Amino acid sequence: MLQSTDARSGALHGAAWDESSPEQIDAAVAAAASAADAFAAKSNAQRAAFLRALAQALTDNAAALLPVADRETALGLPRLEGELARTAFQLRGFADAVEQGAAQAFLDETAMAGAPPAGRPRLSRIQAPLGPVAVFAASNFPFAFSVLGGDSASAFAAGCPVVLKAHPGHPQLSRDVAAIAATVVEQCGLPAGVFQLVEGASVAVGVQLVQSPAIAAVAFTGSFKGGTALARLAADRPRPVPFYGELGSVNPLVVLPAALAGGPDALAQTLADSICLGAGQFCTSPGVIVVFKDAPGDAFVQQLRTRLAAAAPHAMLNAGIRAAFERGVDQWRQHAKLQVLVDGRQPQGNPRPFLAQVDVADFLADHRLHEEVFGCAALVVRVDDSAQVVALLNAIGGTLTSTLWGVPAGDVQPDEAVLAVVRTAVQVSGRVLFSGVPTGVAVTAAQHHGGPFPASTAPFTTSVGYAAVQRFVRPLALQDAPGWLLAREGAFL
Amino acid sequence: MLQSTDARSGALHGAAWDESSPEQIDAAVAAAASAADAFAAKSNAQRAAFLRALAQALTDNAAALLPVADRETALGLPRLEGELARTAFQLRGFADAVEQGAAQAFLDETAMAGAPPAGRPRLSRIQAPLGPVAVFAASNFPFAFSVLGGDSASAFAAGCPVVLKAHPGHPQLSRDVAAIAATVVEQCGLPAGVFQLVEGASVAVGVQLVQSPAIAAVAFTGSFKGGTALARLAADRPRPVPFYGELGSVNPLVVLPAALAGGPDALAQTLADSICLGAGQFCTSPGVIVVFKDAPGDAFVQQLRTRLAAAAPHAMLNAGIRAAFERGVDQWRQHAKLQVLVDGRQPQGNPRPFLAQVDVADFLADHRLHEEVFGCAALVVRVDDSAQVVALLNAIGGTLTSTLWGVPAGDVQPDEAVLAVVRTAVQVSGRVLFSGVPTGVAVTAAQHHGGPFPASTAPFTTSVGYAAVQRFVRPLALQDAPGWLLAREGAFL
Repeated sequence: MLQSTDARSGALHGAAWDESSPEQIDAAVAAAASAADAFAAKSNAQRAAFLRALAQALTDNAAALLPVADRETALGLPRLEGELARTAFQLRGFADAVEQGAAQAFLDETAMAGAPPAGRPRLSRIQAPLGPVAVFAASNFPFAFSVLGGDSASAFAAGCPVVLKAHPGHPQLSRDVAAIAATVVEQCGLPAGVFQLVEGASVAVGVQLVQSPAIAAVAFTGSFKGGTALARLAADRPRPVPFYGELGSVNPLVVLPAALAGGPDALAQTLADSICLGAGQFCTSPGVIVVFKDAPGDAFVQQLRTRLAAAAPHAMLNAGIRAAFERGVDQWRQHAKLQVLVDGRQPQGNPRPFLAQVDVADFLADHRLHEEVFGCAALVVRVDDSAQVVALLNAIGGTLTSTLWGVPAGDVQPDEAVLAVVRTAVQVSGRVLFSGVPTGVAVTAAQHHGGPFPASTAPFTTSVGYAAVQRFVRPLALQDAPGWLLAREGAFL
Repeated sequence: MLQSTDARSGALHGAAWDESSPEQIDAAVAAAASAADAFAAKSNAQRAAFLRALAQALTDNAAALLPVADRETALGLPRLEGELARTAFQLRGFADAVEQGAAQAFLDETAMAGAPPAGRPRLSRIQAPLGPVAVFAASNFPFAFSVLGGDSASAFAAGCPVVLKAHPGHPQLSRDVAAIAATVVEQCGLPAGVFQLVEGASVAVGVQLVQSPAIAAVAFTGSFKGGTALARLAADRPRPVPFYGELGSVNPLVVLPAALAGGPDALAQTLADSICLGAGQFCTSPGVIVVFKDAPGDAFVQQLRTRLAAAAPHAMLNAGIRAAFERGVDQWRQHAKLQVLVDGRQPQGNPRPFLAQVDVADFLADHRLHEEVFGCAALVVRVDDSAQVVALLNAIGGTLTSTLWGVPAGDVQPDEAVLAVVRTAVQVSGRVLFSGVPTGVAVTAAQHHGGPFPASTAPFTTSVGYAAVQRFVRPLALQDAPGWLLAREGAFL
């Protein structure tokens, strides 16, 4: 059963309803499959118009949607207003990208006379939409990674119908946004199968969706446990399909000694704000802070401690996430090698920031410390030198982001010690920051929100930014293609 | 034990030797891992020079290599000369591609002032080499898909060391080419770990290689059974790695009625030649020939039958492949619904072409008929209309190539019946041909040699052509990167 719940009070709101039945899920997938060819055949202009109409409808309905979102997530109206604006911006951005040919990559090579290998036929490389995409909405972005979030927008941009698995944490908002989407689909003259909603809190709904033969790809934002389990199902199908899972990470932030030349105050405040932003409920929340064992490092940690102790995060998304946070922090409290620096000890209600410190040797020795605690908690790891930073980054192994403060900014390449840190960060991360904090992921063409496993199950792909379209189109070659087909320059049949 | 064998006579040649021990495999992987950072840091010019030196060394040693290749594979000197030339061409082509920046995809977006979503930091999208790549050589291309074939060339172009698993079908040739590669590595001043050879006929060697933690990706050309088993191991590692498996397919060739307007003779000869080329030992060999049930279709089948009956394929690659071909053909001989059209019945020595005919309804009803018989055998499937062609293509589901003869070549889009065939071919294929035969895969930038599962375990990627480099570089974003790093424009650290 699904029911709208007040995230702050736990109070139930309105009537409960059943999750989607197996028959309803089959029907949703069948509708998407039957709409696939017609949707794929739409021109770039038609796809762009659809994406812009979705953006406009979201904006037009903001006044009705925002209170529901706030009640179900406790994220607060300012944040949710910004997130809705970002979601509309993203839909419009994908519309622009489609018009610029992002879903096509047309490369036409003329024939060359003569024997192989130099002689060759005319070859044209195009991209074709994959077909129906299953999208799993996330809990922590009720607009931007939910019903009409980046995964849906990029699938639509690619010309693929979407079967959206709503997140049970904001079930009423999901229904409301899905109703808006269905209206826009109809207004744009598209088949209803272009957007389908399925609902459920049980594992069975997601399993059935991933195993549906007509589903051609899966996009998922959520936990390591859920994501890797579904990824395995996708790989074990008679016909495996790509599983684009964005699973979160610890997002190491390295404070190189040069970063503290201007004093610790501003940086400590920036970092404390990032750790507590949205009660720490971001997949890019900095969870491991690497600080050198020296006096400026001590001063920075002391400042961070002071500022975190004074912070007051808002309520978490739901009781399950709140309980998981408390369990994670409890594990750290009881860890023999950890020195607790900030601990508000508030097991219920709004969470309190938690900060602990550990020596790099103890961090490297215990893999449990490399796992994310979702919420406003971070671990300070103290190091002697940059070789230990390299070892730490390699031990973490795969992360959405790494942040390196204090890398020289000029045109002169730094020494090998710093270079090795940069090289390793590049090897283990989806995004490497040289200033600022990892929370906040700009929606642009250059963005990459992914990274090596376990940050993502598909490290070559991004779930944010316009390259996300590439997840849902497959390249192929046409040999000696007829004129009428080449005239489409890769736009689909 | 490994031993060089005369493919025509079965005679053993020279002394036998042990396959690589577990310790030797570990040492090869360790050497590759230790060379990875140094190789990744080489400039595009240095990588290109290395690839060109490999091409030149192959060409310089052709006189010594070709007789060994011919003895171990029975493919004949003309074909092997052409294949060696293609392999050198390919290495030089990847050198050109590297110089043109194929391994980098540098996109630099300036910062934009203001609040998100429009405001953003400076973001630069780059690509980084993955690290050591395990390459499994194929039996049927002893140069072009073996030690210095396309997988090795594209991994080197990407800046990744290669651990090459030699194919036991041509063990002496593999050793000879590997020795040449090692010499070139040394001459170019690269660490020896850039290229490592492992050898084995047992499953254990490949399993250990795929499971080695330092291996960052696997490229494989071979059977469905072996490829899917290794793909599962790659996915089940604690840290899964991409598995680029090219597994072969039935390569449907559709003879639309319009194709036969000029008579059946030339087309039947072209097709018979393609079926028998290299004794049918190509992953692109046409295995399912779709012909309409009409008088011109009957005449075409009759012509094909005559020409195949007259063909004399050369010896197959080895006794195991020869026996598998005979087993496959035997299954077809005994199939109640199949009408045998050509059957030389020669269970030993050179294979004889085999052709059988089946009604589309019987073909659709029996999944075993959708499986490839590796060798000079094909199945003619007779259809009433284009809807049955669509059903047949969908039933095959994933294929390296589909060939459509008789699609109108002009600028006028054909009717929906033909359009549906083209659309379906695009959906299930890695390459769609509108003339000619699928054997022969040009090495170009537009080429795509892959296709939906089961043709490939990684349908988004190609194992032939310059886009193959993309398998071994991972995109990521740099945020507010320093000047010295941006000056590299994506070339690695």
